[in-house]
Amino acid sequence: MTPPAPIPGPIDPPARLLMGPGPITVDPRVLRAMSAQLTGQYDPYMTSTMGEVQELYRDVFRTRNAATLLVDGTSRAGIEAVLVSLLAPGDRVLVPIFGRFGHLLAEISERCGAEVHRLEREWGTVFPASEIEAALREVRPKVLAVVHGDTSTTLAQPLDELGALAAAHGALFYTDATASLGGNAFHADAWGLDAASTGLQKCLAGPSGSAPLTLSEAAVDVIAARSRVEEGIRPAGAADDGAGEADAAPIASNYFDLGQILKYWGPERLNHHTEATTMLYGARECARILLEEGDGHDGGLRGVDAAVARHALHGAAMTAGLLGLGFELFGDQSVRMNNVIGVRIPEGVDGDAGRAALLRDYGVEIGTSFGPLHGKVWRIGVMGYNARRDAVLTTLAALEQLLRRAGVRVAPGGGVDAALGAYADAGTAA
Amino acid sequence: MTPPAPIPGPIDPPARLLMGPGPITVDPRVLRAMSAQLTGQYDPYMTSTMGEVQELYRDVFRTRNAATLLVDGTSRAGIEAVLVSLLAPGDRVLVPIFGRFGHLLAEISERCGAEVHRLEREWGTVFPASEIEAALREVRPKVLAVVHGDTSTTLAQPLDELGALAAAHGALFYTDATASLGGNAFHADAWGLDAASTGLQKCLAGPSGSAPLTLSEAAVDVIAARSRVEEGIRPAGAADDGAGEADAAPIASNYFDLGQILKYWGPERLNHHTEATTMLYGARECARILLEEGDGHDGGLRGVDAAVARHALHGAAMTAGLLGLGFELFGDQSVRMNNVIGVRIPEGVDGDAGRAALLRDYGVEIGTSFGPLHGKVWRIGVMGYNARRDAVLTTLAALEQLLRRAGVRVAPGGGVDAALGAYADAGTAA
Repeated sequence: MTPPAPIPGPIDPPARLLMGPGPITVDPRVLRAMSAQLTGQYDPYMTSTMGEVQELYRDVFRTRNAATLLVDGTSRAGIEAVLVSLLAPGDRVLVPIFGRFGHLLAEISERCGAEVHRLEREWGTVFPASEIEAALREVRPKVLAVVHGDTSTTLAQPLDELGALAAAHGALFYTDATASLGGNAFHADAWGLDAASTGLQKCLAGPSGSAPLTLSEAAVDVIAARSRVEEGIRPAGAADDGAGEADAAPIASNYFDLGQILKYWGPERLNHHTEATTMLYGARECARILLEEGDGHDGGLRGVDAAVARHALHGAAMTAGLLGLGFELFGDQSVRMNNVIGVRIPEGVDGDAGRAALLRDYGVEIGTSFGPLHGKVWRIGVMGYNARRDAVLTTLAALEQLLRRAGVRVAPGGGVDAALGAYADAGTAA
Repeated sequence: MTPPAPIPGPIDPPARLLMGPGPITVDPRVLRAMSAQLTGQYDPYMTSTMGEVQELYRDVFRTRNAATLLVDGTSRAGIEAVLVSLLAPGDRVLVPIFGRFGHLLAEISERCGAEVHRLEREWGTVFPASEIEAALREVRPKVLAVVHGDTSTTLAQPLDELGALAAAHGALFYTDATASLGGNAFHADAWGLDAASTGLQKCLAGPSGSAPLTLSEAAVDVIAARSRVEEGIRPAGAADDGAGEADAAPIASNYFDLGQILKYWGPERLNHHTEATTMLYGARECARILLEEGDGHDGGLRGVDAAVARHALHGAAMTAGLLGLGFELFGDQSVRMNNVIGVRIPEGVDGDAGRAALLRDYGVEIGTSFGPLHGKVWRIGVMGYNARRDAVLTTLAALEQLLRRAGVRVAPGGGVDAALGAYADAGTAA
């Protein structure tokens, strides 16, 4: 018998400045919140904390939806929970795709057994509302599912007109706001969204592993008709399984059955999973510090508005700096997210080797790309805790050295000077 | 417009001694590990840490399965990942049910579209192997799915004979070891398991939110035939979607597609979800401190064996103490888990009011029960960080006061004395 492998020591990650498309460096306040001890699952402190989390995320999503809660998993757990709870086999879903995560919505919908209608655009562009309207008219889907900000291309699909169009054609309107929420304007109710989900690891400055989501009453009605009480916790002698409508197709997942999850978060407090309390503490702190941002004095912004403005400021400074280093930007800049910027990798630079050198020599991480953009585009994030002046300038300084040593002609200080110029223009330079 | 709700302060849970069936008080070392900062998803530190986690959990599950990894969700996420990845619509599954979580395995299997064959026993008993063998012969299932320790009844189904029986009848053998692993003997390979999953919130002394699991080569073969490469990250121009066998029914979930998840954890490192790094840090520390337990000197136990012996010791002391307080035990004690004890609530005591008083006056939480046992049985946990002498004695002291004030005749010091006697018998009294 081989001797057992030696037991490794405690966790001890190297210092990193995470300037990729996410996950990014977690706000230390979130890590501190996550080091708090547990209470029991139905402790009065726990249930009141769950209530606080619901109220905090209503403000983050800008909704009054009662059905606002966390799914215990990464952001794609939230996506799947929404889609599998809404879509029964054979239901039509319309998925406009302008990047990797649009494909993910289509794939998940297909696994739900839905009839998936894809609209595709070249990566680097988004859809005019008229194109989506025409497809809504033709397909008449039960659900319109659109990614808000697709990190794979750095762009955000404008959603403000789509809710009214979906409603006019009888479709529920869902968006995946993982990459955008907290760093870009987002208005679930004003935009007519029936469902929106997100993760913590982008502009919310937390780690991956919790998926906040919100559902309109119309979405809840669809889900309630398909849900039932879990086998094994039905009251003794209950023949009824609690299903709203006997002819509605049951939800194909227990873990993602939002009907059951709603009864766990709601006044029924019906046991489902054991809530991932540490992730809940983290999700709570992410929302709390976002809503606390800005002083609101002298006409200053407050809460999510202040956070969005911060992402816009530092994203613009980073963009100016990248241009100052001679990079060419990727994608339609008029619809780019504030928090992630795509640049074409300069001729003669090996994208992956360059990223590895940046990590090794400066501890700075930037992102690669998927699918058609792999090897051609780097993605640089400016989000959450790292939407900060020193993070922007440090990244630009390191990138300059990387380019110089790779033999790219670059103006000395060209990145930092341009970023400082952008800050000065915005009236916030030191 | 109503003014926004005031923003609550930082997380600040009350002090609790969690002596229910889980979640229990987290080992402070695990909380410290979870406060470590992130690295990027493909940082060399991250991928090597993922490799360490795989190796650590091989030792915890006692397996050499290459396919040993974490699913990002609570323990039932691990259950659903195994079942939805193994079971295609129409596949037969045999589920022996002796408590709530057996019902959960049946429910999840049904949602997978499987043909579910239930065997049921009265809560408080387990199955003789012969009964399961007879059903295997009759049903000829693709999968035999059994809960190991069902916290709802405190009992553990003996599994050591079932692997050979399942193999003899051509069935894959899966167990949910959420409640048992780390506190009771468990041998995935020696017992012939093809799949086992667990959570952190019981004997592993962590918070809920990560589901370690392991798969045999036979299970991986079934899954690989059903898996495919995710839409949106297939290499440019690839017509092949990476499926092993064109006629195998695809897996009905993306999030729980263990084929894709294996390619994320494996050398391919194919992007799937964004790993919940903080939970991974926690899961790593849970396994690490378990394997580090005991000094192994002078014939002393080491690692999981030491942890199991600790759970047996403190579970026995708690049991002696509960008998010393006059409680009647619930369920077949010959197959009770080391880490959770059911007692009948004494005549005249309101179970829920008693638990609330214990929490309010002593900060001690014990558990209620589900289904047929609700209002009749309390469940007292002795597990993970709280499988400790002071936690046992404090709980017994508090329970004595609770019973006395509720008007139950109880011998003064009867619980603590009996527990101390048990410790003395074991040769570990102070």
